[in-house]
Amino acid sequence: MAKTEIDRLTQLLSRLPGLGPRSARRAVLFLMKKRESLMLPLAKAMTDAAASIVNCPTCGNLDTENPCAICQSPKRDHSKICVVEEVGDLWALERSGAFKGLYHVLGGTLSALDGRGPAQLNVNQLLDRAGETHVQEIILALSATVDGQTTGHYLTECLTGYEVDVSKLAHGVPVGGSLDYLDDGTLTAALKARRPTN
Amino acid sequence: MAKTEIDRLTQLLSRLPGLGPRSARRAVLFLMKKRESLMLPLAKAMTDAAASIVNCPTCGNLDTENPCAICQSPKRDHSKICVVEEVGDLWALERSGAFKGLYHVLGGTLSALDGRGPAQLNVNQLLDRAGETHVQEIILALSATVDGQTTGHYLTECLTGYEVDVSKLAHGVPVGGSLDYLDDGTLTAALKARRPTN
Repeated sequence: MAKTEIDRLTQLLSRLPGLGPRSARRAVLFLMKKRESLMLPLAKAMTDAAASIVNCPTCGNLDTENPCAICQSPKRDHSKICVVEEVGDLWALERSGAFKGLYHVLGGTLSALDGRGPAQLNVNQLLDRAGETHVQEIILALSATVDGQTTGHYLTECLTGYEVDVSKLAHGVPVGGSLDYLDDGTLTAALKARRPTN
Repeated sequence: MAKTEIDRLTQLLSRLPGLGPRSARRAVLFLMKKRESLMLPLAKAMTDAAASIVNCPTCGNLDTENPCAICQSPKRDHSKICVVEEVGDLWALERSGAFKGLYHVLGGTLSALDGRGPAQLNVNQLLDRAGETHVQEIILALSATVDGQTTGHYLTECLTGYEVDVSKLAHGVPVGGSLDYLDDGTLTAALKARRPTN
């Protein structure tokens, strides 16, 4: 077997999240069968993406434009900033179409275990933006995990004194979720946050 | 968002086996974080592999050499040919280290449902090789599925009249397998093929 090329490709592919050594081998065989239609276009798409995509210096989003299309857009509500952990969370919110303001990507959460403090996150840039006069609301869209909530508390404290409203996502029953399968924490939160049916 | 580059990369990655749209998005974000260490090397590895790796005209294996390293090797037993469905099966046998002969990749199985007849498989090349004087045994290492076994029967018939022994893999209890979880077919086969314990 061609130890060099095939093994190197398998080894690199197996580093992708969701692919282990076995599925990487399957992917390599699949790619070798579709050289012209998939393998070369994929190689080119990666080279192009690596060359053209940058992190927006304002919000941290990935885009070919600088600043990114969201930060540039006059159609977005520039008075609201939604704080997310990662670019993937920003994409998820964009897919939902529920938010028309701007974003701020923290780059993770505070984590004592992994040794990530405020200096490792884009906290200062957020405070700078919170100080701008047109910004009225900061929405914390962080994970409902211990680290996510700790980060939320920390940011809320940092933002005291700034003339902005700070809000966070509601906890409750997921749409489509059955009560039977929900954990106690979510049920308690949903019950506490109950609303009149009008 | 940069619809063009990121979406194109996501769409191409999601065509790999084992990656759906969601895991492709995760993979793209992972790649964007590791541009120099993973994304560009991966693109290069793909371009290199596409350019340098060919199917061996004799056995169908993938290699940079032509004929492939296995067919060329004087250390392999050239009197035995192991017939497999796909290159992945050849790799699996090579990893086991249990076989030191040559291979022949059929390129699939006969399948009435998918309209694959003998003309779509490398059957004629196998018969040509079976006719060579130094070949003594053809081992059919095909899947224990209906299509695999049909293909095995067909090849056995084709090879009648050639001066070669035709054998196939044993059926039985997988090593590490518990009887409790085995299907009836495997249990029946293992019982029928029982051997003295000496």
